[in-house]
Amino acid sequence: MVFNINNFFNSRDKNSKIGDFQDLDHLNGLSIGTTTANLYGNKRDDLVLFYFREGANYASVYTQSKIVSENIKWNLSIKNKKIRALLVNTRNANAFTGKKGFDGIKSIAQNLSEILTEKQKLDEEKPEKIKTNELIFASTGTIGEKFPSEKIISCLPDLIRKIKYTQNKYIWIKAAMGIMTTDLKPKMSMEECKIGNSSIKIYGIAKGSGMIYPNMATTLGFVFTDANLSSSLLSQLLKKNISTTFNAISCDGDTSTNDMVSIFATCNAKNAEIKSINDPKLKNFNKSLNSVLLNLAKRVASDGEGASKLVTINTINCNTEENAKKISFSVANSPLVKTAIAGEDPNWGRIIMAIGKANVKLNLKKLSIKFGKNLIIQKGELSTSFNEDEVAEYMKEDNIDINIDIGTGKKNFSAYTMDLTKKYIEINTDYRS
Amino acid sequence: MVFNINNFFNSRDKNSKIGDFQDLDHLNGLSIGTTTANLYGNKRDDLVLFYFREGANYASVYTQSKIVSENIKWNLSIKNKKIRALLVNTRNANAFTGKKGFDGIKSIAQNLSEILTEKQKLDEEKPEKIKTNELIFASTGTIGEKFPSEKIISCLPDLIRKIKYTQNKYIWIKAAMGIMTTDLKPKMSMEECKIGNSSIKIYGIAKGSGMIYPNMATTLGFVFTDANLSSSLLSQLLKKNISTTFNAISCDGDTSTNDMVSIFATCNAKNAEIKSINDPKLKNFNKSLNSVLLNLAKRVASDGEGASKLVTINTINCNTEENAKKISFSVANSPLVKTAIAGEDPNWGRIIMAIGKANVKLNLKKLSIKFGKNLIIQKGELSTSFNEDEVAEYMKEDNIDINIDIGTGKKNFSAYTMDLTKKYIEINTDYRS
Repeated sequence: MVFNINNFFNSRDKNSKIGDFQDLDHLNGLSIGTTTANLYGNKRDDLVLFYFREGANYASVYTQSKIVSENIKWNLSIKNKKIRALLVNTRNANAFTGKKGFDGIKSIAQNLSEILTEKQKLDEEKPEKIKTNELIFASTGTIGEKFPSEKIISCLPDLIRKIKYTQNKYIWIKAAMGIMTTDLKPKMSMEECKIGNSSIKIYGIAKGSGMIYPNMATTLGFVFTDANLSSSLLSQLLKKNISTTFNAISCDGDTSTNDMVSIFATCNAKNAEIKSINDPKLKNFNKSLNSVLLNLAKRVASDGEGASKLVTINTINCNTEENAKKISFSVANSPLVKTAIAGEDPNWGRIIMAIGKANVKLNLKKLSIKFGKNLIIQKGELSTSFNEDEVAEYMKEDNIDINIDIGTGKKNFSAYTMDLTKKYIEINTDYRS
Repeated sequence: MVFNINNFFNSRDKNSKIGDFQDLDHLNGLSIGTTTANLYGNKRDDLVLFYFREGANYASVYTQSKIVSENIKWNLSIKNKKIRALLVNTRNANAFTGKKGFDGIKSIAQNLSEILTEKQKLDEEKPEKIKTNELIFASTGTIGEKFPSEKIISCLPDLIRKIKYTQNKYIWIKAAMGIMTTDLKPKMSMEECKIGNSSIKIYGIAKGSGMIYPNMATTLGFVFTDANLSSSLLSQLLKKNISTTFNAISCDGDTSTNDMVSIFATCNAKNAEIKSINDPKLKNFNKSLNSVLLNLAKRVASDGEGASKLVTINTINCNTEENAKKISFSVANSPLVKTAIAGEDPNWGRIIMAIGKANVKLNLKKLSIKFGKNLIIQKGELSTSFNEDEVAEYMKEDNIDINIDIGTGKKNFSAYTMDLTKKYIEINTDYRS
């Protein structure tokens, strides 16, 4: 199937598990281009460029895997606080490709810096030289295949030619689709907020959709804001908000070599300088950033490979957040829980199993479990109000909430996952999917 | 389907992934009975009694889950070094059944002790009273359902009536089938060895077959020997050998509330007393016990829910055994690796991913990977001898060995698992399977 915008608008899902997304539009200081290097052999867009004509402050978090892709090694070597562009390719992860893979990135960077420098000369009053150490890269796709740097380089002129300085909803959708691999839907999210009196935009796009386990897996997430914030503040804000958003989702417990979530600030909004993350003027921005990240993260989980349901596991009233997290993830990662949910079976015994194996001390007499609003276990015993037919009806919904009250403290953690279906197996047993 | 021995002999699989088992026969001091309490509603055997007319020394290891079944709570409360019987029921796990579940065990124990005491009076020259604290229990099945203690109690007279003092291969197969849940095949294993000049038998049976992750999951394993060994020695021997056998298998990363592996020694063999686990006379026994446990563990893994292949992950030359174990299990528990194997796809990129996420420091330049004898990665690079067609041919076999050479030390660990197939999802999405 060739991805195109018309296909997308036709299939746009008004009954999406987490609601349709709002349209993104212009964000001062950011330009987007997409093109096809024909890496899939079907002419779909597979290269997306985010270009900051005046530069952008930025911060990134990366996979925790001990084997990381060559583009991430490149990004980690960049010490510049300000960057000029992010280039994303799909189909090839550039992981376990060794020196050749890294050299591929180098020559793309060299070419890209030259073409963008030319563009500066043509378009800007005060053109600047774009250096290779102002460029970062994201890759996603198959591990261990030769990285097609020549193919990508040959597309760069076309890619840069297509860049417009005014963005609209179409280019955002093209970008969100251009970074997809086995995702079925593009993932976008936006919030508007204030820093002092300045109106600020926060736009984000992301892709999934297998290998999603804490610390992000084959997730790519990119957030763009026009706020005037330093790279150091962006880094603190990203780290603060990643644990309850992108690091709270799990699709299959697998983690990729290529995960990356970044935030870019074009600083066009001209809000007053913020010096500390504790500045009350940042409160609104912080909350909105969390919303954008959480919204994207949920879209990744609900579009996990083969997913038919978005499953939220809320563990509450635990003695520590760490323990609440262990329990939420033990349930979120349990194949037996996830297959029961796929079967729309209110099999609370499997929830008990998954709580038990989380290696957290429990007082069973204080444990309560609800499926949605349906009380199943109350203080360690099967609730007298438990009606299996009612709960079975609830299990047919698209959004399933498993609420676990540990009853021994005040700390909470929510994890997001999907059900485990035959479709997941189909997608992943296909020879080299 | 009603399980019966004829069915079993007809279907007995001469091409089993780990070879057919040897027939077990008489073991002095042990008697076996099986019957049906009709817990499945299809008259299959669901109650199995192992009776030691002169008592047996024993040791057990149990699930590491923080929520354990009522029968395991009972067993943990038994301080006697010698026991008289083990009663196993299937279909109902007696987990999360609270005080009623525990009281159920109590009344079964009371009844069983009375009936066995009567049997002693009838059959023994020096009859002894069988006390409730000489009885232990194993349960497997659905969590959270009312424990059918009355049904079980009503079957005890029939069960004890059926006991014969001479055992043959048929009663062993009946016992191995009587403890099965979703297992497709009974699991038996035997070794003969020497302690000093005495010939010793070691017989074992086990069941799986979902929720199998280290520390045993819904695994039940029972090993019987006629060796004369103290309970303390049995405990040391069991703990020593469990980590590389039952705790080296993983089916789906889930752990049950009911796991239990026990060893029973009738002491009929009259070998000279052994005082220390380091006694060289134990060497042969120790090795044979490991073989019996490993053989059973592999049978459990190869009959894991939906399994079409037995997969062995050998991580070698690591700096510590703990790290080798982390890597082996990271691969063994990866749904993406397991679906690729189900698809017979030599997708080594997913092995790289799973090694990377194991959180073990690596020197990629020393990493080598083989599928069977086929070299894929040699010292961090794709081997020049790698021929994808040859490896794809290898992936069609029933036994797949993934050999990972870390190259930084001398410690090894092997984990055993199965592929992840649509059949697994089918079995587990069925309403309350």
